[in-house]
Amino acid sequence: MTDAAFEAAVAAARQGLSQGGIPIGAALARNGEIIAVGHNGRVQHADPIAHGEMAALRAAGRQQTYRDTVLYTTLAPCAMCTGAILLFKIPRVVVGEARTFPGELDVLRSRGVTVDVLDDERCVGLMERFQQDHPSLWAEDIAE
Amino acid sequence: MTDAAFEAAVAAARQGLSQGGIPIGAALARNGEIIAVGHNGRVQHADPIAHGEMAALRAAGRQQTYRDTVLYTTLAPCAMCTGAILLFKIPRVVVGEARTFPGELDVLRSRGVTVDVLDDERCVGLMERFQQDHPSLWAEDIAE
Repeated sequence: MTDAAFEAAVAAARQGLSQGGIPIGAALARNGEIIAVGHNGRVQHADPIAHGEMAALRAAGRQQTYRDTVLYTTLAPCAMCTGAILLFKIPRVVVGEARTFPGELDVLRSRGVTVDVLDDERCVGLMERFQQDHPSLWAEDIAE
Repeated sequence: MTDAAFEAAVAAARQGLSQGGIPIGAALARNGEIIAVGHNGRVQHADPIAHGEMAALRAAGRQQTYRDTVLYTTLAPCAMCTGAILLFKIPRVVVGEARTFPGELDVLRSRGVTVDVLDDERCVGLMERFQQDHPSLWAEDIAE
């Protein structure tokens, strides 16, 4: 479970929080090497599409293929990030937790993506506190 | 059919092409007013998530709601852009054409989004020429 790419995603989530942002981070890896890391940037950049996963995919730049990559994220991917995973044909997603937000894990699995949920207590704690402290910001991020 | 927001999307697609980019544009409107316009920026910004629809959503910045918006796009939305439309609960999407790329219109409709396809010849022409002239770039954009 002590995967360096997952730890990078957790560190990115914490970095986002320290900037006043929403604490969700992600990392893209290939053959165990981290290609890119990102975190939610809604607050920092007034960018509604900058979810953690999207920020990591943007930071990775142009890739010829994603079929040999794994996406790590601290929180279950929403519909947008799920769609990006499907578009780019990323075969495996490692999810920190799906307790504080269910995401679209069933959609991912139904389209053949391997989804591993770690149920990481650090990720749960980050989101539980954030959702308690900033309910309207969290609602805005998932358009509720 | 001569909707100003759709015309803005077409103009954005042409602007992207003039920059050496992929000619897909989009616009977000509320009550007939254009909120934001965007075009594909994969080439210009080495940004794989900058599809036309995503660029328009990013340009619109933070919105409290999208339930009163319409998204206009020159091409049928891919899985990523479809996911963004679902996340943000955009109720209606106006699509220039779905002939050169089918997108995920069935997914949108199955989740309650109203989809109008204009089958606009200008949009078809832009994409047909681009796909002929730059097949590998087009394949890269949709990860094929």
